[in-house]
Amino acid sequence: MFKINENYLKLPGSYLFSTIAKKVAAYQQANPDKTIIRLGIGDVTLPIVPAVVEAIHKAADEMGHAETFHGYAPDLGYDFLREAIVQKDYMAWGCRISPDEIFISDGAKSDCGNIQEIFSPDSRIAVCDPVYPVYVDSNVMAGRTGEYDEAKGMWSNVIYMPCRSENHFVPELPKETPDLIYLCNPNNPTGTTLTREQLKVWVDYANRIGAVILYDAAYEAYIAEPEVPHSIFEIQGARTCAIEFRSFSKKAGFTGVRLGFTVVPKDLMCGDVMLHSLWARRHGTKFNGAPYIEQRAGLAVYSEEGNRQVMEQVAYYMRNARVIYNGLKEAGYMVYGGVNSPYIWLKTEQGMTSWEFFDHLLEQANVVGTPGSGFGPSGEGYFRLTAFGTYENTVEAVERIKALRK
Amino acid sequence: MFKINENYLKLPGSYLFSTIAKKVAAYQQANPDKTIIRLGIGDVTLPIVPAVVEAIHKAADEMGHAETFHGYAPDLGYDFLREAIVQKDYMAWGCRISPDEIFISDGAKSDCGNIQEIFSPDSRIAVCDPVYPVYVDSNVMAGRTGEYDEAKGMWSNVIYMPCRSENHFVPELPKETPDLIYLCNPNNPTGTTLTREQLKVWVDYANRIGAVILYDAAYEAYIAEPEVPHSIFEIQGARTCAIEFRSFSKKAGFTGVRLGFTVVPKDLMCGDVMLHSLWARRHGTKFNGAPYIEQRAGLAVYSEEGNRQVMEQVAYYMRNARVIYNGLKEAGYMVYGGVNSPYIWLKTEQGMTSWEFFDHLLEQANVVGTPGSGFGPSGEGYFRLTAFGTYENTVEAVERIKALRK
Repeated sequence: MFKINENYLKLPGSYLFSTIAKKVAAYQQANPDKTIIRLGIGDVTLPIVPAVVEAIHKAADEMGHAETFHGYAPDLGYDFLREAIVQKDYMAWGCRISPDEIFISDGAKSDCGNIQEIFSPDSRIAVCDPVYPVYVDSNVMAGRTGEYDEAKGMWSNVIYMPCRSENHFVPELPKETPDLIYLCNPNNPTGTTLTREQLKVWVDYANRIGAVILYDAAYEAYIAEPEVPHSIFEIQGARTCAIEFRSFSKKAGFTGVRLGFTVVPKDLMCGDVMLHSLWARRHGTKFNGAPYIEQRAGLAVYSEEGNRQVMEQVAYYMRNARVIYNGLKEAGYMVYGGVNSPYIWLKTEQGMTSWEFFDHLLEQANVVGTPGSGFGPSGEGYFRLTAFGTYENTVEAVERIKALRK
Repeated sequence: MFKINENYLKLPGSYLFSTIAKKVAAYQQANPDKTIIRLGIGDVTLPIVPAVVEAIHKAADEMGHAETFHGYAPDLGYDFLREAIVQKDYMAWGCRISPDEIFISDGAKSDCGNIQEIFSPDSRIAVCDPVYPVYVDSNVMAGRTGEYDEAKGMWSNVIYMPCRSENHFVPELPKETPDLIYLCNPNNPTGTTLTREQLKVWVDYANRIGAVILYDAAYEAYIAEPEVPHSIFEIQGARTCAIEFRSFSKKAGFTGVRLGFTVVPKDLMCGDVMLHSLWARRHGTKFNGAPYIEQRAGLAVYSEEGNRQVMEQVAYYMRNARVIYNGLKEAGYMVYGGVNSPYIWLKTEQGMTSWEFFDHLLEQANVVGTPGSGFGPSGEGYFRLTAFGTYENTVEAVERIKALRK
């Protein structure tokens, strides 16, 4: 009789967003006259920009004619896109990355979830707390995380690095020695960042202990401050210890288009084995390339016109972020993130848990956010609002929250 | 110091297509006046049909306007596509499959490669020999296959089911007991099929011993004979023992568009655990949905116009297949496949290995095919030609091969 991967059964239910949806639906049903504003989701709302739409039309027409048709894409991506990425995302920031170190994929989530496969099953992982759940869950599935303590909300074999206001959301070097260190910068969910100097500490540490940093830079386009690095490869030494994940989702509104990439430098070795070769082998065996149309859409993001258009969208969301940040600060809240990130992280009302604050905002202000405790135990007492709504709704939501404190 | 997944190092190099490319390039360089015809690749050559191109244009415009923009897709696929699939691919053949048993993905290769993850690490796999390499390689990476015997070209812990002319390419029930059985019907690379009756033997066997059949139906659109099932779910009992993989690649020329789906029936249980829940959890954790544009393109394949157009392309390729099949038979070759499949499988010239025959055809007829031994030890002495070329080239290639025997 066949058996299943028992590790899957260890995963606790992922109830966060479904619980939110149920609570919101129940409230709306009981109060049909109330207008609820949703600032909880991490999905974008602005449409794909004209330069990208045009590129998709052009690629669709190419696919419709035998002379310009494209079948299977190169496993690791088309050169036209890999070269644009190197030039605009790396050379522009002084990073030495070559096109064949770029692996085009259908998105950063897939890559962040799949990357653990190329490492030993007994690898020890370290994550920030709170954290994007994919890093942990993909390792649970692979049997690396030990047992789950329901009460604590923690796995016995995961090294947690608490990020709270007390340490300015900067994780401290762990006491135990990890093999794999997940860092997300700018951070989801806290919206806070590591500066170049702070990241250098991690690169040096990883090189010293022989760990790999799995660096998620999905929110890179939102960086505004000059001391925040756009890539870990701006840091000297990163080529021997880091893998970087990038996404077009939040930069260009590609959440439904699906395109991302991963950078595995050829200097990243385990003995005489290049991790680059292992990831190439995984791509070649379990993936069949990102669609031609999407890769052309991605290239359009790097055109002069496309870049201008997507950065206007980023600016639109960042105006929302400022409205939330400044409004809540004025109202007396302790507010974090929102400067280099579309996420605003705030301390709940005195004495309220994240979920109590959720109910409070829903019922008193008709505003929906995400309880920080849903991202890990150190998220307790915090709350996430996102800048992805419309400007009008964002202003209105902030006015309502401010009114509660008057 | 971090460690890698050592199983990756056990994988022998995948030199088949790169060796072919090198040999062809060398021959062409030495003989610049010769016109080489390639019937080796498994990629399509006809462009995307007009109905699909139109659907892509429409979806691109939707993505370009805020009112019709689509962000993150539902993890398991849009209902519009899942419902069309159920109606056209399953209800039409009398199969009881519900839309929520369909998982939309970026292609059958990803799903075939990833499916093993939801099973126990000590699962024993059975594969046909010759075989599509992804089934074996993805299990090598997971550490299930034991040691590789270079001389035999076989793994110590894989159950091989030889498929040769002696058994009419119908695998026999294995003597050892497998947990997972990979079946591809119509078969890649042999182009041969299992009839409904023959498949019933496997379904009954799997239910009896408690194994799961991983059924790859990527070439379903090419089935011409009424006794060949379009889905394993036509067979009674399959809902408790089978998972089916489908692809738009060969049916609608989507090799560069990327769309496929997997059917996991809710009756497929291990104790009280539904495999459906495990696959849903994998999709939710390590995948972010297939692109909206591609799912709209997929829906167009099921429209009246779209279906007519793609089936015309299938007919075009199948005319090629007949040209190859009949021509080679006339020339005295033993020929298989090609009736319900775009692949023709032939016995090499008396006494020639697959690679010797490759050289013979390349040098004497300037025709490129694929050596059968590249797909497994039982492929030795066989050779694969594909019907995906142009009609004119296919006719010319067959004339050249026939001329060799005159």
